[in-house]
Amino acid sequence: MNTSLLFNNLLNKSQILVGDALKDRYSHIWQMGQPLKALCVLLPENTNQVSEIMKICYQNDLPVVPHGGLTNLVGSTETFGNEVVISTERMDRIEEIDKSSRTITVQAGVILENIHNATEKEGMLFPLNFGAKGSAQIGGIVSTNAGGLRVLKYGMTRQLVLGLEAVTYDGTVITSMKKIIKDNSAYDLKQLFIGSEGTLGLITRVILKLEELPKSRNAAFIGLNDYKDVVAFLKYCDSKLAGKLSGFELLWKNSYKQMTSVNDSVRPPLPYNYNYYVLIESLGAHQSNDYDEFQSLLEEALENEKIIDAVIASSQSEVNWFFRIREDVNNLVDFMNHDQHFDISLPIPNIGRYIEERYEALKKIKGVEQVYAFGHVADGNIHFMVGKSNDSVALKKEIDHCIYSGLKAIGGSVSAEHGIGLHKKNYLSLCRTEDEINLMQVIKKSMDPKGLLNPGKIF
Amino acid sequence: MNTSLLFNNLLNKSQILVGDALKDRYSHIWQMGQPLKALCVLLPENTNQVSEIMKICYQNDLPVVPHGGLTNLVGSTETFGNEVVISTERMDRIEEIDKSSRTITVQAGVILENIHNATEKEGMLFPLNFGAKGSAQIGGIVSTNAGGLRVLKYGMTRQLVLGLEAVTYDGTVITSMKKIIKDNSAYDLKQLFIGSEGTLGLITRVILKLEELPKSRNAAFIGLNDYKDVVAFLKYCDSKLAGKLSGFELLWKNSYKQMTSVNDSVRPPLPYNYNYYVLIESLGAHQSNDYDEFQSLLEEALENEKIIDAVIASSQSEVNWFFRIREDVNNLVDFMNHDQHFDISLPIPNIGRYIEERYEALKKIKGVEQVYAFGHVADGNIHFMVGKSNDSVALKKEIDHCIYSGLKAIGGSVSAEHGIGLHKKNYLSLCRTEDEINLMQVIKKSMDPKGLLNPGKIF
Repeated sequence: MNTSLLFNNLLNKSQILVGDALKDRYSHIWQMGQPLKALCVLLPENTNQVSEIMKICYQNDLPVVPHGGLTNLVGSTETFGNEVVISTERMDRIEEIDKSSRTITVQAGVILENIHNATEKEGMLFPLNFGAKGSAQIGGIVSTNAGGLRVLKYGMTRQLVLGLEAVTYDGTVITSMKKIIKDNSAYDLKQLFIGSEGTLGLITRVILKLEELPKSRNAAFIGLNDYKDVVAFLKYCDSKLAGKLSGFELLWKNSYKQMTSVNDSVRPPLPYNYNYYVLIESLGAHQSNDYDEFQSLLEEALENEKIIDAVIASSQSEVNWFFRIREDVNNLVDFMNHDQHFDISLPIPNIGRYIEERYEALKKIKGVEQVYAFGHVADGNIHFMVGKSNDSVALKKEIDHCIYSGLKAIGGSVSAEHGIGLHKKNYLSLCRTEDEINLMQVIKKSMDPKGLLNPGKIF
Repeated sequence: MNTSLLFNNLLNKSQILVGDALKDRYSHIWQMGQPLKALCVLLPENTNQVSEIMKICYQNDLPVVPHGGLTNLVGSTETFGNEVVISTERMDRIEEIDKSSRTITVQAGVILENIHNATEKEGMLFPLNFGAKGSAQIGGIVSTNAGGLRVLKYGMTRQLVLGLEAVTYDGTVITSMKKIIKDNSAYDLKQLFIGSEGTLGLITRVILKLEELPKSRNAAFIGLNDYKDVVAFLKYCDSKLAGKLSGFELLWKNSYKQMTSVNDSVRPPLPYNYNYYVLIESLGAHQSNDYDEFQSLLEEALENEKIIDAVIASSQSEVNWFFRIREDVNNLVDFMNHDQHFDISLPIPNIGRYIEERYEALKKIKGVEQVYAFGHVADGNIHFMVGKSNDSVALKKEIDHCIYSGLKAIGGSVSAEHGIGLHKKNYLSLCRTEDEINLMQVIKKSMDPKGLLNPGKIF
């Protein structure tokens, strides 16, 4: 049977892609060369169409894979070929910006950068920010509970969602679209859909919490030699800057060196004398006052030998320079023969030693050529980038094992931000107990009895 | 059968209360005169004992009601007589304060005020704060997702829980006790237990997120006449104070008048000339700098006619005076023959008109003697206190209906903070859809197949 015929009464022709039309589609933004394997791709325009599609899929036992901006890093949008792909790309309407409620209401397919642009025009900020903002769609962002650069001040996606609408396995529309900040009227259902990677339902609309747009932004690079001083400096900054500290990023010496050696646009703000480089950022209300506050904070820290060296960005273009260093990971990846990325989470005091031990252990693995660590240290979230000589499964597994195996003992996680998807399934038990995973499966079973929602992902 | 015998091998005599021993127990801190109706009260000392108790209850089909500090406001700890009560009062151990991870690890029975005292000694803040802090236990606080006075800056309980351990219906211990801020390793199970009022499991331990202790606190009272100016002033303060704004409380004129007329300790900081009185608070790093910032912010607002009148607390004792006015609700309740309390949530821009209309409508109800509104307006959370001539069920229902009936249309909630419990069950459908409630029951059924966990609550 031609599956796509099932949807002919519901959708118009341009909304149903089959056969040759799939050749130009793909399952990940990094795999554009590989044509998508799927029964069909459907392009609904609203919640009702998603609901009707799900009813048909449920009646016909058709597995469903949701597609958004396809920027995830764990294979959660990959397909096996027997699925109906539901892409939210046409659900790209910003429905409302409410400056008094400080909310924006959007369909799932709205791209993050479009939310930024629309809210900033209104003097508001949607604080979630990360590299893929030009492609990532909010439905996917919410279903992976994305993090990014300003979690320290504003929280992860979970903290920014006020209202949510999702379609469940049988086409039921769960509408919890409220603009209210507090709602203790029984179970907070939206928590089930946030971060569950499309395995419990398809997110169709959300109401997001906005902030007043900050009026100032300051940044500084700091040099330190001991990891325990990094932790003490974090506490010092958080205390001194009250609610204004918005970034506290750590680069290990060799990462800093590489990230500042590629061209003049990422030249080093501090010399290569230190073991750790911290990039701090504050967002406030007065540019000059906040700059002065930053300066006296750093002067005091230098006087008291809390830090060894520091440089403040003296203009917004210098702020951008500092952040370019941190954000452009291509300056690491471009020099690797093959690369492998990590996104681990661990208690802040354990980070220094754990990373040091991993550096040592990775160096001993044959085929490992480079190891770079950096990350959102204030969130306990470190990204590892490992360069290697070949792409063999054996080497990949050996590196995975090296980085993940010690996490359980210190209460860490194999995924801080990216999720589990397809690629981290085998490592889930390294950071969750058997009873936790069993309970997850009870929930999954109760909310997707036929197992049709993004099958094979997470479990 | 004497139910308590089932637990003789597990617990010692002092941990099992039956018969006459129940006479001194009660089901709510406001109902000390009414002896508890229950099969027995068990006093476990650790998670393992809770787990073993749950196994026995499951095998013997015994309903279980968890008891903490018994300060909830919706009957969620009430019993019918056929239940085993599990009280967490002996699980009162603070296990660890980790200043580097900025976490505290506690058993469920630890009283909130004890967490405050222990963390402040270490220069850290657990920001959750509300009137019942001297009695409320953290297990109950987490299972009701309590809010309180500083949600604007720090979030509700849900945002403050990093790790959680709970015992499910059959005695399984779900341990997600991690100190990490980010963990996207599959479903975030703790979200199921937070705010579900003991209907999905019993919380036994939690890891809470701490903040650096603020070094300054400033407060001011502001007089305004139009509700739209209140909203504009909130946006103005939030923007000007960057991350420091920690409180934005609103008192309606008649509430302010009554709250400042009882005795000299709550004398009025501003005259009775205005329709709305806003109490703002900021928490920062420098007392004098922050005071100056406060002053210039208010001067500018006065000059630009954003506000009509303002007074800043010139000392910490004046800050305390200002907050005493807001916090001592007995100054309202003591003058009522009978009282009825509300805790509604609604979008911020709708508050002015909705409350005004309720005032008018309530005045027309025979038996209503006083109506006072005040609340956490920045969170969209308004508390109503209604004084009435009698305690009849009919009058109670009429008042409930008057306050709740318009909420659905504007996307509000019958419970911002307090939960649903026993007392708001009949109103749940006024703010949640049938499909939402059905999904909640699917979750409830899958996590409590025999319906033994806090039965009759929420649904």
